[in-house]
Amino acid sequence: MKGLWLQDRKMSFRSDLPLPILEADEVLIKVLLAGVCSTDLEMLKGYYDFTGIPGHEFVGQVVDANGHPGLLGKRVIGDINISCGECERCLQQEPSQCMQRRTLGIFNYNGVFAEYCKLPAKNLTLVPDSVSAVLAVFTEPTAAAMRILEQVQVKPSDRVIVVGAGRLGLLIAQVLKNTGCDLKVVVRRAEPAAILNGLGIMAVYADEIKGELADIIVEVTGSPEGFELSRSLTRARGTLVLKSTFAGDVSLNLSKLVVDEITVVGSRCGNYPAGLRALSSGLVQVSEMVDSVFSLEQGLDAIERAGQPGVLKVLIRS
Amino acid sequence: MKGLWLQDRKMSFRSDLPLPILEADEVLIKVLLAGVCSTDLEMLKGYYDFTGIPGHEFVGQVVDANGHPGLLGKRVIGDINISCGECERCLQQEPSQCMQRRTLGIFNYNGVFAEYCKLPAKNLTLVPDSVSAVLAVFTEPTAAAMRILEQVQVKPSDRVIVVGAGRLGLLIAQVLKNTGCDLKVVVRRAEPAAILNGLGIMAVYADEIKGELADIIVEVTGSPEGFELSRSLTRARGTLVLKSTFAGDVSLNLSKLVVDEITVVGSRCGNYPAGLRALSSGLVQVSEMVDSVFSLEQGLDAIERAGQPGVLKVLIRS
Repeated sequence: MKGLWLQDRKMSFRSDLPLPILEADEVLIKVLLAGVCSTDLEMLKGYYDFTGIPGHEFVGQVVDANGHPGLLGKRVIGDINISCGECERCLQQEPSQCMQRRTLGIFNYNGVFAEYCKLPAKNLTLVPDSVSAVLAVFTEPTAAAMRILEQVQVKPSDRVIVVGAGRLGLLIAQVLKNTGCDLKVVVRRAEPAAILNGLGIMAVYADEIKGELADIIVEVTGSPEGFELSRSLTRARGTLVLKSTFAGDVSLNLSKLVVDEITVVGSRCGNYPAGLRALSSGLVQVSEMVDSVFSLEQGLDAIERAGQPGVLKVLIRS
Repeated sequence: MKGLWLQDRKMSFRSDLPLPILEADEVLIKVLLAGVCSTDLEMLKGYYDFTGIPGHEFVGQVVDANGHPGLLGKRVIGDINISCGECERCLQQEPSQCMQRRTLGIFNYNGVFAEYCKLPAKNLTLVPDSVSAVLAVFTEPTAAAMRILEQVQVKPSDRVIVVGAGRLGLLIAQVLKNTGCDLKVVVRRAEPAAILNGLGIMAVYADEIKGELADIIVEVTGSPEGFELSRSLTRARGTLVLKSTFAGDVSLNLSKLVVDEITVVGSRCGNYPAGLRALSSGLVQVSEMVDSVFSLEQGLDAIERAGQPGVLKVLIRS
């Protein structure tokens, strides 16, 4: 089959990739639409030493249900964590933190930038007919944005600042806006500021917000400068949510966290049905967020486009 | 009066220090006994740029009650945070995080390594006659240890590891033991291991615990190595409590906190009446923790002694 291949931090387009081989409980999925995420771009910088087909945001159609006839022909999205079901975290109902997990297109499991992918049946959520593929492909990052609300109680009276207004930041901003909190989003460009304003969310530049203090800060830049700005905006006894991975080590003053009694919360994957529900009901809107759609054959161009500064969601149609 | 004086990171003994001048609501206290804390030693390394009388752990006797007659002649311990009563944190009943606060012997307020000190009356807690001065002088660090329980719910079924068994670590270990949790304390020497074993607490060396994972980790070393060990012992979705200040910046991999969804909690001062209650009732025992008692005139020797590796609590009698 056709698809992208990552090896030694280089991406190539190949036409000779083997079809996924199904193990027990795995089903075969025709990829309909895939999204390029910042994590995919980080992998090119060596964030993970992954060899295989990258990509983890997708909507697809089940073409070999492998013993789960109810799934055949259905459109699905899927949890990217392939869990063992037997380790301590799985037994405590936290399969996304499975200690032996493989991760779709990221770690030990081929991903979705190809004609076909596979996933265990238990990972899948059906996509209602009323939900378009372009909407459904945003399920994984929307669920990740909503994960914050599973970890931190955001109250209507809270002052909340999101630092970063890229692909993920714009989703997080919408999720937080729905709590009724007093929300500001730190932007670096006019384009995301316009999108935020269109959604009724206040966008500010970093120099307009210096010296302010908020109860909850969400860091979505993944840069040391973004972390430092975020920390400086967090009030004593406030909460700093880390929503982006950082390439390499970051040097920071831990004493400030101790003296100000700040709580730092690492945040990763969310609940997929909840993400799909939010998109389906319009709680989260993505119509302004699609930058471009490439064919699978143009996949390398899609990756390059997604890496340009300020570019929002790039999609790949299989 | 006699006392120690810190200036340009150097400590001296002086006999010509002026008596504290009382402002409204401040009372004058004859220091009976003071404790040397690691923070005092850190200040010699420039942790804070403080000029004045250092020291913040004390028990004393009120000798000028300045309009609070009920306090005259009473033995007291005191909250080290001098709060404004008017800022946002004070109005939200979090005076220890007052945004304009001064801190006894640490920041803009003379401390207790002297014959006399002063504090606002509202900062004081009376010491019952049944509680010895040696016990009462441990109130501040015991309250700081108990602060963890105000921030994190420690359940009887939790696996908890304390990394570091110095002055503060031994108090934290006892506070956590009382929760009934499954507790281990990482030590580097035989002496604290013996004290812990005598208290019925399991002591382990770092190389005996590699590869284990706990639900809650308390970092009390204040060293980059201690932080890295602590992080590696924290399970996915676990909690890492930072209980020590760190001199300088620490370089760390923030992505591991994100991917493992670890919560980092900075922890500082606690509730003083609760600390005194725990000492008074025997919930926390300090009889094995006093290394030596020096006179105020021998104060510089006391500071030097407290800085020796493995030395526990050094006291200064005024």
